[in-house]
Amino acid sequence: MGTIGIIGGMGPAATADLFCKITANTAAETDQQHLRVLIDSNTAIPDRTAAIAQGDKTPLYALLRSALALEQMGADLLIMACNTAHHFYPDMLPYLRVPFLNMPEETALHLERQGLSRVGLLATDGMLQTGIYERALGRRGIEALLPDEQGQRAVVALIYEGVKAERLEGYDIAPLCGALDKLMAAGAQALLLACTELPLAFAHFALPYPGVDPTLVLARAAILRAGGRLREAPGR
Amino acid sequence: MGTIGIIGGMGPAATADLFCKITANTAAETDQQHLRVLIDSNTAIPDRTAAIAQGDKTPLYALLRSALALEQMGADLLIMACNTAHHFYPDMLPYLRVPFLNMPEETALHLERQGLSRVGLLATDGMLQTGIYERALGRRGIEALLPDEQGQRAVVALIYEGVKAERLEGYDIAPLCGALDKLMAAGAQALLLACTELPLAFAHFALPYPGVDPTLVLARAAILRAGGRLREAPGR
Repeated sequence: MGTIGIIGGMGPAATADLFCKITANTAAETDQQHLRVLIDSNTAIPDRTAAIAQGDKTPLYALLRSALALEQMGADLLIMACNTAHHFYPDMLPYLRVPFLNMPEETALHLERQGLSRVGLLATDGMLQTGIYERALGRRGIEALLPDEQGQRAVVALIYEGVKAERLEGYDIAPLCGALDKLMAAGAQALLLACTELPLAFAHFALPYPGVDPTLVLARAAILRAGGRLREAPGR
Repeated sequence: MGTIGIIGGMGPAATADLFCKITANTAAETDQQHLRVLIDSNTAIPDRTAAIAQGDKTPLYALLRSALALEQMGADLLIMACNTAHHFYPDMLPYLRVPFLNMPEETALHLERQGLSRVGLLATDGMLQTGIYERALGRRGIEALLPDEQGQRAVVALIYEGVKAERLEGYDIAPLCGALDKLMAAGAQALLLACTELPLAFAHFALPYPGVDPTLVLARAAILRAGGRLREAPGR
């Protein structure tokens, strides 16, 4: 079985979530039947949205240093626990000698296999500005619906002021739910949680919307690619 | 701030639990205020209890390879997410050039600070055979009460057949609770969950016993030692 390397720290809770999902989705009855996983939860990586939206310091070099260090340590397969960071994926790929799974591409493929044709896209401003998900979905004939301006502010607030700031207790999610209701009313068949912090918030509040979690899709794709055995029912 | 290296994979769920507890116990409002954490979840490390109790293949060399690789990758401080593996701690220490926190010692210190004098000790057979916790507690005048033979079988079954085999749903915990009730009746002020799988099971079943979780103690000690800011209220 191969060793999975996780480029993480964006944020650390999302990295832990990906690691938990790899463990929970592997069919194993002993420690030794699980896949080896190497993680660099490098919290010093510059903010991805600030780099893309405001031209702040690029995270590219820090991402590459993590990727190369994980390769050096024995990773046979790389994955990255941050959707927005995939903006830098094409610039990283030429430096690597092991396969590097692409979370947005794996997710678009998953939606195509599920037969979906219209989804609500929830992500950071930086992520939306890159157009990564819209292009990946568009190539497979899947339409992406975006929240309106007020709804987008509610999504970003939940990510930064809720999950990253660890202030989900007592957080007011009414504005967010309003935005999600509008997306569903506009014909979204599911909500694509295209920021690794969102599945954490959706689980915390047990939000009653059909959500698609790219972290879970990536975890299951990585297990298969690394030669692990997949649990039939998705875990967590 | 320093970088924490986790020697893990014993099992992967316990490693993820330690990582989550480091994140949840760090006072931080942005990714960048969290500590960097490097993890080698090396699930191929030979079973610790089998090595100690039955003389099976030693995990020492695999543990050392993980420790040295984490140092090489930049860890300033090492911790190990397995109580039983601490049997090999003295043999690892001379090879390392960064500090290596000792989970049983940190836990005994924590119990001493809490003013406890008698605790129930729940651990694998291999762990009990090492006497690590009994010595660490004894040096601080704390008495360790052990389950009777039947109770010990219930503890070991929960660890291997419950948590490691991922079969907690519908697991019959009545035999375990019987053993725990006896320990409390014998004067235990708290139950020391001296196997990293036990806090996972105690949380899953919301067991109503006063438990002391060495994983949580180690997470908080590591945050402080690495120069991070501790959340006041213990997380998770």
